[in-house]
Amino acid sequence: MAVSPLAPTDVPDMPAIAGVKLATAEAGIRYKGRADVLLAVLDEGTTVAGVFTRSKCPSAPVEWCRAKLGRGKARALVVNSGNANAFTGKTGRQSTAMTAKIAAKAVACSSNEVFLASTGVIGEPLDAQKFDGVLGHLANGASPGEWMSAARAIMTTDTFPKVATATVKLGKTEVTINGMAKGAGMIAPDMATMLSFVFTDAPLAAPALQALLKETVADTFNAVTIDGDTSTSDTLLAFATGAAAARGTPRIARASDPRLRSFRNAFAGVLADLAEQVARDGEGARKLVEVEIEGAVSKASARRIAMSIANSPLVKTAIAGEDANWGRVVMAVGKAGEPADRDKLSIWFGGIRVAHKGMRDPAYDEAKVSAAMKEAKISLKVSLGLGRAHDRVLTCDLTKEYVAINGDYRS
Amino acid sequence: MAVSPLAPTDVPDMPAIAGVKLATAEAGIRYKGRADVLLAVLDEGTTVAGVFTRSKCPSAPVEWCRAKLGRGKARALVVNSGNANAFTGKTGRQSTAMTAKIAAKAVACSSNEVFLASTGVIGEPLDAQKFDGVLGHLANGASPGEWMSAARAIMTTDTFPKVATATVKLGKTEVTINGMAKGAGMIAPDMATMLSFVFTDAPLAAPALQALLKETVADTFNAVTIDGDTSTSDTLLAFATGAAAARGTPRIARASDPRLRSFRNAFAGVLADLAEQVARDGEGARKLVEVEIEGAVSKASARRIAMSIANSPLVKTAIAGEDANWGRVVMAVGKAGEPADRDKLSIWFGGIRVAHKGMRDPAYDEAKVSAAMKEAKISLKVSLGLGRAHDRVLTCDLTKEYVAINGDYRS
Repeated sequence: MAVSPLAPTDVPDMPAIAGVKLATAEAGIRYKGRADVLLAVLDEGTTVAGVFTRSKCPSAPVEWCRAKLGRGKARALVVNSGNANAFTGKTGRQSTAMTAKIAAKAVACSSNEVFLASTGVIGEPLDAQKFDGVLGHLANGASPGEWMSAARAIMTTDTFPKVATATVKLGKTEVTINGMAKGAGMIAPDMATMLSFVFTDAPLAAPALQALLKETVADTFNAVTIDGDTSTSDTLLAFATGAAAARGTPRIARASDPRLRSFRNAFAGVLADLAEQVARDGEGARKLVEVEIEGAVSKASARRIAMSIANSPLVKTAIAGEDANWGRVVMAVGKAGEPADRDKLSIWFGGIRVAHKGMRDPAYDEAKVSAAMKEAKISLKVSLGLGRAHDRVLTCDLTKEYVAINGDYRS
Repeated sequence: MAVSPLAPTDVPDMPAIAGVKLATAEAGIRYKGRADVLLAVLDEGTTVAGVFTRSKCPSAPVEWCRAKLGRGKARALVVNSGNANAFTGKTGRQSTAMTAKIAAKAVACSSNEVFLASTGVIGEPLDAQKFDGVLGHLANGASPGEWMSAARAIMTTDTFPKVATATVKLGKTEVTINGMAKGAGMIAPDMATMLSFVFTDAPLAAPALQALLKETVADTFNAVTIDGDTSTSDTLLAFATGAAAARGTPRIARASDPRLRSFRNAFAGVLADLAEQVARDGEGARKLVEVEIEGAVSKASARRIAMSIANSPLVKTAIAGEDANWGRVVMAVGKAGEPADRDKLSIWFGGIRVAHKGMRDPAYDEAKVSAAMKEAKISLKVSLGLGRAHDRVLTCDLTKEYVAINGDYRS
C-alpha cells in the first residue's frame, strides 16, 4: 500500500530513554517477512497508566491491562500485530495469561507487571506458544535505540510508522518523552485499532501519570475520528521509568504539582502529534480535516457537534470531492441534537466564510473557496453564536479507497 | 443514473382516492425537461397529521408545516423538487408564505390549510414567483389518477418512483390508503431528504391520524437508515379526506378505537413498504440489509444497537464486499454503549450462525455463508442473550458508488 499523501515529511530522531529497552521479532503470527512482535523491557520502578476503548465488548488484552493497572507497576510490554485476540472467549483469556507468563519469565518479573496489546484479525485464537522462546531472545537482545523498528512492528494497515518525541525540563534536569502509535487501519478481516505507547524517564507516581494521561487524551486521541467506529482493542499506555531521578529530577506524586507545567505541555504535544498522525493515516485519506466549533453553550456540546460533523459521511465525501458543501455541515450540526440556531450559524472553509447568519455569505468568493478545498489540510469552522465554549477535532475525508480497503479484499 | 438493482419488480396499480386530485408541472426550479412541482388538491374536511426531521436546523417548509399542523385541516399540498428552501434565512420564510398564498388562491382555501415540502439544493433562495400561474393551472387540471406522475415529480436522485397502496375494511366499507415517497438521494450540492405523503379516504379526526402516524413511524421510517445523516427537510404527512363517510364508513375520533384494527395494520403496511423502498434506493446501494436484534434488555436498547450496526461504515463496507465480517458486528455492538456481554453474543448472516457465545461458531460453513452474502438481501441477526426485547432496522451497504454520488460531482 502506498504511503499516505498526508504522511509527515519530518520524522524525528528518537532519543534513548533511560530505563527502556526495545526489541522486535518475526513471531509468524500472521504476516510473513516482517516483525510482528514488540517487547519493551522496563527497569524496576517503572510506573504505568492506561486508557482503553469504551467498547462494551473489549478484547482479552484490554481486559488483562485493566485488571493489572491498579498496581501501577510495569516491567514489560508485549505488543503483537496480526491477531487482535479479540472475541476469542475463554481461549483469549488463556492466551493473554500465557503470553504474560512467558514475558514475565523472559524479563524476570511478575505476570502482574506485564502489559499486553494485540492488533490484527479478530475471532481467531492467538497461539501464545508462538511467543515462547521469541520473548526470551528479545529480552536478551533489547536495546535503547529501536524506536523506529518498534513503531514498524506494531503496524497493521498503517502506511507509515508513527513516532513523536519531546525533551523538556522537570525541575532542573531534562527528561524525555517518546511515543509511538498505530492507527485505525484495517485489512481483511482485521479490526480498526488504535494502539499507542508513551514512555518517559520522568519519575511520576502511577496516580499522577494516570491523571495526566486521562486529562491529555480528551483533546488528543479522543478528539480524532476516522469513521466513528470504535475498536474493541483501542489501548493507550504510558510508562514512566523514573530513571531521571538519579540525575536529580524531582519525584512527582500528584498531577497537580506545579513543577509539572512544562512536562504537561510536552506530554500533551507528543500525544497530539501522534493523534494527528493517526488521522493523517486514516484509511484512504487524501485530506486531513480540522473541525473547529466556537460559540457553543458548553465544551461537551461543542464536542458532540464537532463529532457529528467529523463523522458525517456526507460531509466527508463532499470534502473528498473538494466541495465546500456548507449545507451538509448545517445538516450535521442539526442532527447532533445540541442547542443550535440555524439563523445564527456561520461556517468557514479554509478560513473563508461561506455562510453567515443562516444564509449563504453574500461575499462568498467561489474561486477562493475552490482553491482552499484543493489543499491537503482543510479547516472547517462553525460558529454557533450561542455561547463561549469551543472545541476542535481532527478527521479525514471519506474516499472510494476507504470503501476499497474495507470492502474489496474478497475480490 | 441506472435504476437500483434493489428496485421492486412489482409496481402496484394506484387506485383513486375520493377527495384527492393530483397534478404535476415543470416549474423550472432547477431541473430541465421534467416535472418538479406537485399539487395535491384535497376536498373540504380533509384532516392532516405530520412527523418531521429531528434536526435542530430544519428547513423553512418544515417550520411552516409544524406551525399549521395544530389546526388539523388541509386543502392543498405543494411539493417541489430541485430546491429545498433550507438554510435560506428570512427569504426562506417569505418564500414559504408566498407559495402557500399562491396555492391558497389556486385552490380557494386559507393559507393555513396549505402544506409544503421542498427537496433539492439547499442554501439557494427558492423563487416562489415561479409557482405563480403554475399552481392555478394545476388546480384546474388536477385529477384522481396521477399517482405515478406525482411520485416521479418529487424525485431528486431517486432511481425509481416509490408508491404503495392498500385497501381495507373500516366498519363495513372499504377504504383506500395510497402513499408515495422519495428517498435519501443526493446530488450536487443537494441534501439527502426523505419526503413521504400518505392519503386515505377514511374519516379520521386529526388527533387520531396524528397518533396513528406517530406510532407507525417508529418501526417504519424511523427504522430505516442510509448513512446515519439526517436531513433538515425530512417530512412525512398523512391526509384523510373522510370521503368514505358518505359511503357509510364510521367517523373515527380516537386512534384507540377498536374498529381501526385492520386499518392500523394496512396503514403500517403502506408505510413499511415505502420505507423499505427508500432503503432499496439508498445511494449506491447494491444490498438491502435487515438488522435484527434479539435478547436485548429493552426495545430502546435493541434499537440503539441495531442502529449502531446499521450505521457502521465498517459493517456496511464489509457487506458491500460480501464478507460476513462478524468481528465488525461485535465492534458495532460494543460501541453502542448499551448492555452487551461479549461472551453471550451470537451472530447470524443469512440465517447461518457464524459466531456463538463469544467465539467463532465451530460449525461455521464458510461456503454456505459466502453464498448467502452474494444475495441482494442480507439478513444480519444478533442475539445478545440478556433479555427478551427485540428490534429490526433496514439499511443498505456502503459502496464506492455512494462516495462517487456524494463526492465526485465536482469532477
